[in-house]
Amino acid sequence: MNKVAIIGVGHTKFGRLQDKGLMDLLCEASLEAIENSNTSNKDFDSVYVGAMSPEIFNQTSGIASALVDRISLIPAAADHIKNGPASGGSAVKAGFQAIASGISDLVLVVGGEKMTHITTPGYVTSNVATLTHPEAERPHGVSLPSFAGLLTRAYLEKYDAKLDWISDIALKNHKNGTMNPNAHFQRTIESFMESAIKKGKGNWDNVYDFLKDDKSNPIIADPLRLFHICPISDGAAALVLCNAEKAKDFCDTPINISGIGQATDTHIVFEREDLTTLKALRLCSAQAYKMANKTPEDINVAELHDAFEILEAVQSEDIGFFKKGEGAKAAHDGLTEIGGKIPINPSGGLKARGHPLGATGIAQVVELVWQLRGEAGKRQVDGAETGITCNFGGFGNNIISILVERM
Amino acid sequence: MNKVAIIGVGHTKFGRLQDKGLMDLLCEASLEAIENSNTSNKDFDSVYVGAMSPEIFNQTSGIASALVDRISLIPAAADHIKNGPASGGSAVKAGFQAIASGISDLVLVVGGEKMTHITTPGYVTSNVATLTHPEAERPHGVSLPSFAGLLTRAYLEKYDAKLDWISDIALKNHKNGTMNPNAHFQRTIESFMESAIKKGKGNWDNVYDFLKDDKSNPIIADPLRLFHICPISDGAAALVLCNAEKAKDFCDTPINISGIGQATDTHIVFEREDLTTLKALRLCSAQAYKMANKTPEDINVAELHDAFEILEAVQSEDIGFFKKGEGAKAAHDGLTEIGGKIPINPSGGLKARGHPLGATGIAQVVELVWQLRGEAGKRQVDGAETGITCNFGGFGNNIISILVERM
Repeated sequence: MNKVAIIGVGHTKFGRLQDKGLMDLLCEASLEAIENSNTSNKDFDSVYVGAMSPEIFNQTSGIASALVDRISLIPAAADHIKNGPASGGSAVKAGFQAIASGISDLVLVVGGEKMTHITTPGYVTSNVATLTHPEAERPHGVSLPSFAGLLTRAYLEKYDAKLDWISDIALKNHKNGTMNPNAHFQRTIESFMESAIKKGKGNWDNVYDFLKDDKSNPIIADPLRLFHICPISDGAAALVLCNAEKAKDFCDTPINISGIGQATDTHIVFEREDLTTLKALRLCSAQAYKMANKTPEDINVAELHDAFEILEAVQSEDIGFFKKGEGAKAAHDGLTEIGGKIPINPSGGLKARGHPLGATGIAQVVELVWQLRGEAGKRQVDGAETGITCNFGGFGNNIISILVERM
Repeated sequence: MNKVAIIGVGHTKFGRLQDKGLMDLLCEASLEAIENSNTSNKDFDSVYVGAMSPEIFNQTSGIASALVDRISLIPAAADHIKNGPASGGSAVKAGFQAIASGISDLVLVVGGEKMTHITTPGYVTSNVATLTHPEAERPHGVSLPSFAGLLTRAYLEKYDAKLDWISDIALKNHKNGTMNPNAHFQRTIESFMESAIKKGKGNWDNVYDFLKDDKSNPIIADPLRLFHICPISDGAAALVLCNAEKAKDFCDTPINISGIGQATDTHIVFEREDLTTLKALRLCSAQAYKMANKTPEDINVAELHDAFEILEAVQSEDIGFFKKGEGAKAAHDGLTEIGGKIPINPSGGLKARGHPLGATGIAQVVELVWQLRGEAGKRQVDGAETGITCNFGGFGNNIISILVERM
């Protein structure tokens, strides 16, 4: 198997980007990654584009073919890879396999989504809900937030945990987001509280009380409230991958993709053995660790899929950082902060960086590349040499984990 | 690079399948391929699903995850691969790369589409037209049939060819379809004429006059008429792929995928150097021939993408069987019939087998496997040992070519 290196990264601003369409965002991230990898004058072999629903959100098809046309990568092979909100992770895996197999030497992987122009209430959430089980779940009106609410209840009860600890994850991620110039939210939740106080909307002794206020932080899926859930964002992120043997021709600090795993589980959530265990994550991260010959103890930084803040707690357990039931407490105790035992989501995560569905799995890897190159600015994790991601398609039914390290 | 073998095939009936949904069709083809490969008790590593637009045609997402759930292939990795009407071919390539890289040993590839339930006139065609160039073409209302009409005019003029020769391709493919129990149309165009005569709709001296009758065979995109264009079909097809070293454990007659290529071209059709040359096909078939160490002269049977009958003529040139301008004449002269110099579309092709978009690229390979195994019944090409496909995404802007041979 050929080894695969990341030699360039690109990342648009995430957020409410009303002046750009999906193709603009994909092009912007792609061209940045190509420039970053010093491959502007090279022939690319393949292009993989991750996006969940351009057909629904943007009334367009054939985005991979259109992209290679627009940024002049013709005649590179081009495919669109879909795996719900893990479309980005699946695109990275497709690019990895293209190089590992020897079919391609130079590959562009890009993912993005453009949704904030949609004004119909519930349109995005109900379209994402088409990922639920078509017979056992969808007809009953369940959505992904409702599963996150159930999981939160089950977790708090089973492990005697506190909702404030889940809030602590949101507080940390917003704090990290203030140090990420590409983040959707570059402000703390405390600053949202201060604004509300200034506007005379209320007065709270501390941020936890603010987060319990039904007006400031309305319930979305009991017990989860607005600040426990990621925003709807626009954005794109890109990687240039290369046969590792040739990586040093382009780049002084190539980053190896040394492990990658993907596994599925049933989406009939009530049929799972244990609601609070993500079996697919245990399997796919085990594949990634095995391929890279690493253990969770070797990891210096992680980017997890906190579409709902409860997920960061549960994922931090099933990916091997903490024992079952200890993830939320670990966040409360500061172990997952930058400078903590295992920094999680220094980027701000989905909560603060934002969650343009198809972009997320790639943005996670971009963040790890910056961390491993020592280019993460104020949010730099000191001495980071090895990182891992978790990217979620559906509600934990199709998960990808990518392990990267310095060459 | 690990070698990749096909050890099982599945293929639903193609046509107007009103009693089945998309997931039913994908499951049916998948289970047939699994049974055909004697892998029912084996753990699959990966599943790739090719489908162009289940979001638009079937209001569903996450079809790859849903499929592994329904047919109990969990925890196999599962992704949905999109490349317009070449989604099936791209899914085969994804499965090929998964095994060639060593990431997977046993892979299911399945593709399908379900469209005939859609009753809104033009809905399918206008959705397929989202594959055209978003700025240079789509706003002007061009559709894929309109490009086929232009190409036909240009070809007839440039090469002094006759429209009757294009009709000959349709006549041949309908004849082949009568021998394919899975075909959408299992009857000759002559039999359509006889029915029309019996019903008192007209009287024609020969089938070419019938095909020139505006009522019997209306113009769709001048000079192309209804019988020059494939139908809208439902259906699915599947392959089980395996590391070739292990293929003989499952199957006496494994078929090697010994070459595979994919290339893009601009979709701004008026910017192409020559309308009658498919540059992307020249490139991708050259990749496939090179990987397999074969030439066009080595090929015994081909499955080409005759969404419009002119395409079979042009593809038969650019894939290397005939000189430029001689493809339509070759069909007229019978060189592409079963028993001819190079049999093309013994299955009936897209014209008679039908064209359930995401299924087509896989159905082409299934037909070649049947031919190479000697299991093609009345339409068997004697002594077929090597075959090649051409699968089209968009109007020639993203093409995949797959070369298979007996091990």
